[in-house]
Amino acid sequence: MKRIEKKALARRGIDGLAAYVPGKPVEEAIREYGLKEMIRLASNENPLGTSPKALEAMKQALDDAYLYPEGSSTELRRKVAATFGIEADMVIFGNGADNILLMIAQAFIDEDDEVIVGDPTFSVYETVTRIMGGRVVKVPLRDFTYDLSAIVRKITPQTKLIFVCNPNNPTGSLVTEKEVAQFMDQVPAHCVVVFDEAYAEFVQERNYPQTIRYIHHQKNVLMVRTLSKIFGLAGVRIGYALGPQKLINVLCKVAEPFPVNRVAQAGGLAALDDGEFVKRVLEVNEEGKHYLYEQFSQLGMSYVPSHTNFVFVHLGMDGKLAFQKLWEKGIVIRPGDIWNLPEFSRITIGTAEQNEKLVKALAMIKKENAS
Amino acid sequence: MKRIEKKALARRGIDGLAAYVPGKPVEEAIREYGLKEMIRLASNENPLGTSPKALEAMKQALDDAYLYPEGSSTELRRKVAATFGIEADMVIFGNGADNILLMIAQAFIDEDDEVIVGDPTFSVYETVTRIMGGRVVKVPLRDFTYDLSAIVRKITPQTKLIFVCNPNNPTGSLVTEKEVAQFMDQVPAHCVVVFDEAYAEFVQERNYPQTIRYIHHQKNVLMVRTLSKIFGLAGVRIGYALGPQKLINVLCKVAEPFPVNRVAQAGGLAALDDGEFVKRVLEVNEEGKHYLYEQFSQLGMSYVPSHTNFVFVHLGMDGKLAFQKLWEKGIVIRPGDIWNLPEFSRITIGTAEQNEKLVKALAMIKKENAS
Repeated sequence: MKRIEKKALARRGIDGLAAYVPGKPVEEAIREYGLKEMIRLASNENPLGTSPKALEAMKQALDDAYLYPEGSSTELRRKVAATFGIEADMVIFGNGADNILLMIAQAFIDEDDEVIVGDPTFSVYETVTRIMGGRVVKVPLRDFTYDLSAIVRKITPQTKLIFVCNPNNPTGSLVTEKEVAQFMDQVPAHCVVVFDEAYAEFVQERNYPQTIRYIHHQKNVLMVRTLSKIFGLAGVRIGYALGPQKLINVLCKVAEPFPVNRVAQAGGLAALDDGEFVKRVLEVNEEGKHYLYEQFSQLGMSYVPSHTNFVFVHLGMDGKLAFQKLWEKGIVIRPGDIWNLPEFSRITIGTAEQNEKLVKALAMIKKENAS
Repeated sequence: MKRIEKKALARRGIDGLAAYVPGKPVEEAIREYGLKEMIRLASNENPLGTSPKALEAMKQALDDAYLYPEGSSTELRRKVAATFGIEADMVIFGNGADNILLMIAQAFIDEDDEVIVGDPTFSVYETVTRIMGGRVVKVPLRDFTYDLSAIVRKITPQTKLIFVCNPNNPTGSLVTEKEVAQFMDQVPAHCVVVFDEAYAEFVQERNYPQTIRYIHHQKNVLMVRTLSKIFGLAGVRIGYALGPQKLINVLCKVAEPFPVNRVAQAGGLAALDDGEFVKRVLEVNEEGKHYLYEQFSQLGMSYVPSHTNFVFVHLGMDGKLAFQKLWEKGIVIRPGDIWNLPEFSRITIGTAEQNEKLVKALAMIKKENAS
């Protein structure tokens, strides 16, 4: 008997992981402080709601809620493939981009493989790596931006995955076409580069890399996208990855039989045709961004220029304190302590009205804090 | 450089897995054979559709489709916990029971761990085991029923999980309270027993085991349930597991941040209160079952008495041929070749009208086949 009964039941390494701790429910604050509503600027949700075309399609889809969804999201894969000029078998859909990231870890990370990520960046890369027993190698950002040259220097024979969050969450910065080209020239063939482009649709910068070209050239590249943000579908869970067949095939092997629910598939298909909504979302976002830039400056708060629907701002006071004071006033933001930048916050760009309320509240808090 | 570039990118063992192959879309048959509709008796979906209470709640939930769902399905966990007389932290929800099964594999199966399953049984146990590099040990059914004594004899120091599908899919048979009690007395403490009770709500048998008692006693037991079948929610994906905190905590560590979409959470909450719908579903199912028993007998086809919403029937002809002929007539069933029982089929119990059409078609096919 090699195995003794004291051996932990959980897989090696799982015990060391922290379980996901849910945030304070917004509903509690509404009750506690007698608020009319809570302005949600913490999770980069779409302030204009959901694409109306998607909403209509989802209502219809409920008629078939008792039937299993189509397992491989065939229509969606065909549609996305056509947009990017690739084949449908170079696309895979999942239960949100989080599910895609977990599938990537399951498909590629052997125990003790190294996985390189920026720091700070989206925390799910670390979680999924540790679930699979991989080792996370964190490379600090430079000027709040992914430092691709530093990442190249950290590549070893054990490196399996490199997550490039572009634009980066939580800082909103991006790496350019040229930087990515130089980077890709130096990444060896035993590594898979995952470009997480959850916010790509918000980018107005011309030098934003067209990572699809590496996929056309059969490089070890996966591009991850989501319909949560630009189309306002966070609540129904739908995201996808593009890549060469050799990589997408591996992801298919670890996919659940029915990862994407029927409502999300119908909503996603309709959303992809809702160019009008996207246009409106981008207008509101750009206006809001420039308004916030101006107001933050007037308040003496510096910020990282953003290519997304959020701004990473240096509040110049404890982020948790600011969080609490805004919370009491009916506004929720994401304080920076989770990224070890306690004086920063990540704030979603809202509607004009929401942004004004935020600025007013921040000004008041700043005044209170100074006195 | 220990790792050489020729090493496969995929994790060890993943290459050997088959990717999920989607079934023939029903829509194609409808077009191909000019059918009005397809009677779906292949996937054990609810022939009465979705719980009306759930449907109403889901329509409402679409208003918030742009907001992330609550990550840990708190209200649902509380509700289910109250039903079973346990704490909310002894419940975890997932993107359908398939997602729960994958989480169980991720949480507990180290490479080369052994996992015992019946044969034939639900195929996902094998898939998720192999994804995690575990070894599947198949124990043949006895009289189409899980053979728990034979399973006990297959337990080794390497055994980590035992999947007991009860009632069993595809045979519809069950193991009794007494059999499970004897079994549990013999399972050593280094194994986790997973009772997959996806069809529990259809069981009318008094000796069906109350596995919750093992959870009350902090045994290494997980009970898996789904809202897909009895409530007609297969399309929105929602399932759950119950277990002692020590096991549920481990599952929480491998859970995605937002596994269950907003629509499914709202639908699930409302469905759990829809006792009226459940009553109607069970009436239709029992009536249909006895009608099918009678008709199968008249057609000279033997069947396994079922505790579910499907019947495993010996057609006495090639199942794939029967499948094709029914398909052309607008009825889809599940042929038995995937379980190496080619003369059998798993047929979902439909509405009275659907069952009559099925029987008529089967009689015709049998006649054609004999001539």
